[in-house]
Amino acid sequence: WDSWGAQPHVVDLRSDTVTRPSVAMRQAMAQAEVGDDNYEEDPTVNGEARGQHCGDCAPWLGSDGTLCPVAGTPPHPPPGQTWLWVPSGLSTLTMLSWAQVAGVHSQVLQDLPDGTLDLNELESTVRVGYGSRYHPRSVLICLENTHSSAGGRVLPLAYLREVRLLADCYRLLIHMDGVRLMNAAVAQGVISAQITQHCDSISLCFSKGLGAPAGALVAGCREFVAEAWRVRKLLGGGMRQAGVLAAAARIGLERMEETLQRDHSNARRFTQGIWELGSPICSVDPSAVETNIVLGTVAVPWLSPEKLCERMQAVSEEEVAETGCAVNVRLLPWAARSLRAVWHCDVSAQDTQLAANKLKFVAEQCWRERGAAP
Amino acid sequence: WDSWGAQPHVVDLRSDTVTRPSVAMRQAMAQAEVGDDNYEEDPTVNGEARGQHCGDCAPWLGSDGTLCPVAGTPPHPPPGQTWLWVPSGLSTLTMLSWAQVAGVHSQVLQDLPDGTLDLNELESTVRVGYGSRYHPRSVLICLENTHSSAGGRVLPLAYLREVRLLADCYRLLIHMDGVRLMNAAVAQGVISAQITQHCDSISLCFSKGLGAPAGALVAGCREFVAEAWRVRKLLGGGMRQAGVLAAAARIGLERMEETLQRDHSNARRFTQGIWELGSPICSVDPSAVETNIVLGTVAVPWLSPEKLCERMQAVSEEEVAETGCAVNVRLLPWAARSLRAVWHCDVSAQDTQLAANKLKFVAEQCWRERGAAP
Amino acid sequence: WDSWGAQPHVVDLRSDTVTRPSVAMRQAMAQAEVGDDNYEEDPTVNGEARGQHCGDCAPWLGSDGTLCPVAGTPPHPPPGQTWLWVPSGLSTLTMLSWAQVAGVHSQVLQDLPDGTLDLNELESTVRVGYGSRYHPRSVLICLENTHSSAGGRVLPLAYLREVRLLADCYRLLIHMDGVRLMNAAVAQGVISAQITQHCDSISLCFSKGLGAPAGALVAGCREFVAEAWRVRKLLGGGMRQAGVLAAAARIGLERMEETLQRDHSNARRFTQGIWELGSPICSVDPSAVETNIVLGTVAVPWLSPEKLCERMQAVSEEEVAETGCAVNVRLLPWAARSLRAVWHCDVSAQDTQLAANKLKFVAEQCWRERGAAP
Amino acid sequence: WDSWGAQPHVVDLRSDTVTRPSVAMRQAMAQAEVGDDNYEEDPTVNGEARGQHCGDCAPWLGSDGTLCPVAGTPPHPPPGQTWLWVPSGLSTLTMLSWAQVAGVHSQVLQDLPDGTLDLNELESTVRVGYGSRYHPRSVLICLENTHSSAGGRVLPLAYLREVRLLADCYRLLIHMDGVRLMNAAVAQGVISAQITQHCDSISLCFSKGLGAPAGALVAGCREFVAEAWRVRKLLGGGMRQAGVLAAAARIGLERMEETLQRDHSNARRFTQGIWELGSPICSVDPSAVETNIVLGTVAVPWLSPEKLCERMQAVSEEEVAETGCAVNVRLLPWAARSLRAVWHCDVSAQDTQLAANKLKFVAEQCWRERGAAP
Repeated sequence: WDSWGAQPHVVDLRSDTVTRPSVAMRQAMAQAEVGDDNYEEDPTVNGEARGQHCGDCAPWLGSDGTLCPVAGTPPHPPPGQTWLWVPSGLSTLTMLSWAQVAGVHSQVLQDLPDGTLDLNELESTVRVGYGSRYHPRSVLICLENTHSSAGGRVLPLAYLREVRLLADCYRLLIHMDGVRLMNAAVAQGVISAQITQHCDSISLCFSKGLGAPAGALVAGCREFVAEAWRVRKLLGGGMRQAGVLAAAARIGLERMEETLQRDHSNARRFTQGIWELGSPICSVDPSAVETNIVLGTVAVPWLSPEKLCERMQAVSEEEVAETGCAVNVRLLPWAARSLRAVWHCDVSAQDTQLAANKLKFVAEQCWRERGAAP
Repeated sequence: WDSWGAQPHVVDLRSDTVTRPSVAMRQAMAQAEVGDDNYEEDPTVNGEARGQHCGDCAPWLGSDGTLCPVAGTPPHPPPGQTWLWVPSGLSTLTMLSWAQVAGVHSQVLQDLPDGTLDLNELESTVRVGYGSRYHPRSVLICLENTHSSAGGRVLPLAYLREVRLLADCYRLLIHMDGVRLMNAAVAQGVISAQITQHCDSISLCFSKGLGAPAGALVAGCREFVAEAWRVRKLLGGGMRQAGVLAAAARIGLERMEETLQRDHSNARRFTQGIWELGSPICSVDPSAVETNIVLGTVAVPWLSPEKLCERMQAVSEEEVAETGCAVNVRLLPWAARSLRAVWHCDVSAQDTQLAANKLKFVAEQCWRERGAAP
Repeated sequence: WDSWGAQPHVVDLRSDTVTRPSVAMRQAMAQAEVGDDNYEEDPTVNGEARGQHCGDCAPWLGSDGTLCPVAGTPPHPPPGQTWLWVPSGLSTLTMLSWAQVAGVHSQVLQDLPDGTLDLNELESTVRVGYGSRYHPRSVLICLENTHSSAGGRVLPLAYLREVRLLADCYRLLIHMDGVRLMNAAVAQGVISAQITQHCDSISLCFSKGLGAPAGALVAGCREFVAEAWRVRKLLGGGMRQAGVLAAAARIGLERMEETLQRDHSNARRFTQGIWELGSPICSVDPSAVETNIVLGTVAVPWLSPEKLCERMQAVSEEEVAETGCAVNVRLLPWAARSLRAVWHCDVSAQDTQLAANKLKFVAEQCWRERGAAP
Repeated sequence: WDSWGAQPHVVDLRSDTVTRPSVAMRQAMAQAEVGDDNYEEDPTVNGEARGQHCGDCAPWLGSDGTLCPVAGTPPHPPPGQTWLWVPSGLSTLTMLSWAQVAGVHSQVLQDLPDGTLDLNELESTVRVGYGSRYHPRSVLICLENTHSSAGGRVLPLAYLREVRLLADCYRLLIHMDGVRLMNAAVAQGVISAQITQHCDSISLCFSKGLGAPAGALVAGCREFVAEAWRVRKLLGGGMRQAGVLAAAARIGLERMEETLQRDHSNARRFTQGIWELGSPICSVDPSAVETNIVLGTVAVPWLSPEKLCERMQAVSEEEVAETGCAVNVRLLPWAARSLRAVWHCDVSAQDTQLAANKLKFVAEQCWRERGAAP
């Protein structure tokens, strides 16, 4: 594999959390004006360094998005007794957090394939008034946008309006797990406020599509944020010179539009390539790819997603001979018959093409080995 | 105040958490090799970048030391029913965390002035065997070293051996809140392992005396660390490219000996100055200053610690005329009749001298205003 | 309604919790030898009063069965981090208890119509080993026997053996919510130990089919029971002269076989009557009635279960004229298209006949009002 | 010991929880009209059986007083983050409950000898406003009346008014652990409402001085009680035919004045006897005995309270020869140098005299054995 040197070229599509900070981010971190954020004296966190104020913007959490739902929940009264509706895609570890930290019982609803909930089903499980004495009280609806396990699907704005109406009808709160909120905004061509106006609180992660090394925020009304600050401190999430991370996140936010447009476009291009390939080894539904996530279905019974992922990583002389390249494509086995690819700022258009080529090569190789035409 | 330009010179002695990262740290952060620590792929965190392995060293927590006790507690079985003995100096917020996150009841013991616990009193509250059915079970002893509210006192090694004997006798565990553990090691002239050998688990903070912007670790046996990893994730404390913070912390660790020796020496020099001043406005006990913290007593009834702190911050033409400098010295009101000063890497020997001079000036000014000789 | 006096005859089939203590129970309560159970000095609780020892039998809980799952859970290590599989029929309030009291996340599996779980589905959600770092750890399987929301279905012994094998394979514990365990034993013609041998812990309620006014127990190994004792005390569930309730429960246990046989027989007779009626107003599946619970389906769209329940309670001159009786039958609306009837010691064979007659009368009346033959 | 038959006469002064229900109580239990209290259909609990309504009276808890503080706490918002001031006399198990069930951190204050708190100290620990971000928020003051570990001391009404003023000043709530509230009311010659008017919520135990076998209640405003009902259910504290216990408690309430007057009078008479004895073996402070509890100090170094308790239980031929009786007096070792005696409805004036005689005999015997005059 001369053209690539001793090491195969790696295209890491496992998650958008694997990004490395850009040169601009590293510079910003090295030059950031900082202070003790526990005393609210970090100018970069406070936005003073750039003459910007975030208003009710929530405190920096200095961690990945997982803390957000946790920190985001307790302020909603009454902790210890709430009943959360959560899309089934949210990690069970997150739900365990809610049980352990906030003492809340979470009610999981099965999502529809587009990442939305069946609102009739949701409404039928609401418990308010007298009957609620025998049940956990209905307090909060949790949405995830974009919806990760549905393959990065964007929640339609009309759907959000409906959920808001339902919530208002029963006096429920809405929290949006928006670790990929900006992907949704860019895909819908709206500013994020057009999405978050339907929510009481949201979380946002800087270390996914925005490419920062770490950091997340939660936002909500003034009281919510004040309480989130306390909970962050209580859970040990406070940082001192948090500005070093805020500086990188700021770069991520500034270049967001451009970065995410490119990621979505690369994901679509890859999808198009796979779709044109038409191989049962890995099929995709182009209409389901709305942002930076592609779920592929392994439709042949003799190949598991784990096995296909291994083959995408392995590099052989045969591959070099046939394609001229040695490419290690890292994918994530997702469910019994599916795998996941996620685009992010460290994956270029050329990487995307290489990944599509590799999949074509692997698919053909698999058929050859089975002694059959595809 | 011509000699200082428009702004008075600031000497911030409120806490050792206010340090700004050094040039070397900023460079290290900008150049750190990083990866997704959630997949354990961050070489700087893993120590590979420098050819070092930390063995059972605990995961990076990416936050200040508060998370440590929390993350450090749940692995000790059985959560939900333990009885912790804790020195009264530990923050009540930390103890609230234990209640909320781990469901444990913490039993506070009044510390002695040197930061140790009365071991007879501790032993008398142990509940094991049949009688313990009516009481929270005795499981864990928590120590703080150096002891913050006692003024940075170092726990004697002989005392630690005694606590260990007591703990073994009743099969109790020992956790050391060691956010300033390295100050203790440097003050005692031992390596930290000579202290931590008496403990089952410890925590350590990089953003205090070591000067890093953020980060802490907990350490213990292999099972403890595995469980701490889970709890960190559960509490939302996981970070992605945590290496950017680990790189700065590594610099702090490398220069620790030199940094802390200087801080301790500056604190002693300041103490000596105040002691020689002999003013009831602010008196100190030189024998109680063992590390980087100085507690001063305001012994005159007509001046509160808050008021004295204000005067130490205020800059006047009178000060410039008399001392030739305009110096803003930031101290922390501590208790009803005391205030606290803490040395750290951003306070030089010259800053220390300026702070002592300012206190001398303020003390004399106070007496003048009362129309009396000091 | 001369024949019944001023008041209609009431047949209360809402639940087997509405029973009133029998004359024998009231006598036993009035004569019980008692002591302070907090000091374990209550002879009736201890079984000494009757020369019986219960061995590892669990402490009296002095409350209805709800406390059992709660008290039953925390002893299973490690609290705060377990992953429970629970049949969806268990009350969400119970699951909230687990979250609030024990900090555990409960994973609900959809039950099959006969009250069993799909064991392949259960196995696919087990998380053990390395991968479990990102998930709540798999610890406990919770079964309910008889299965309330499936209509009192009895878990087959062969199924229990399979669950035990699965649990042993992954080192999981099995807790059986056996508030109606004795109904299962009587229906299967076995002693309860043949059922409970497959479980690590069980709970049992005395105020359901056994007819006692209050009381429940949990049982398990010696360590489990010792821990349950502590948790009961901690939750405020301890009682002093608990023997007054134990005496009534003892009577319930002694007459159990006879009582439950009769309840099951009455439930079957009622089912037979409804089945022969063949009305879409309320249809039943005789093969699904195994114990004392009957679920009826309201198969006509123009009548809700709530409305049918109201009609079963209402008494009219027309009813008296046609049937010679005025009978108020209390049923519970159950789900969107179903209602529930439960037999217990206060419902005689004659009451059962009257309830069946009333349903026949109401069904015909409904059709008449619709101007149609049934 | 002819005069007493084969068995010595037992006077059990360990606690007022050891009472056995009276004949009247047993009759009331046997005849009580009952229903399913979970549906609020128990007429005895509801007070309908006697034409009485308790208004906002709290639900029956069907357990001893321990549940009260637990059930009483969560309704006070915001759970999970409150800071309770509690007298140090309250059981640590109760405080563990608060941690585990409600996630609250309890701040223990050292009580004064008369059972009151130092209100200046209490005020100095209140955290409200901005500074409270770093501390558990101050929400609730918990009082105990009568104060058990202070020896049944009654909180003065003037003190309660002061606590109320302080609470109102900082918008704090007051909960009174009133398991022996009626002893306080009888001792002060007031109705209980004159005490409880100063509190937001109270608990009361029926199985202590009132002599019922089990049961307790919490009371507060309508919202508090509604929430307490939910929490009781959630903790598994609900009972079905709770009227059997309510009937006994009602008898206890009706005869309260007479019962408690007699208990207090007996306790005073015993105290007088011990005081007149003037022995350092067991000395008492008559001015500290206000209700039914007597704390005795063992002032000789060669006798432990445990040893003295053993001697009070042991019966010898020497005792029979000297006193004409064989009396087993059960006392509770209390602290390092003290023991406790508690009067209740099963201890008559004659029993009291016998207990005093026995103590006199034991004291003299001890001195004789030491070969010295007392």
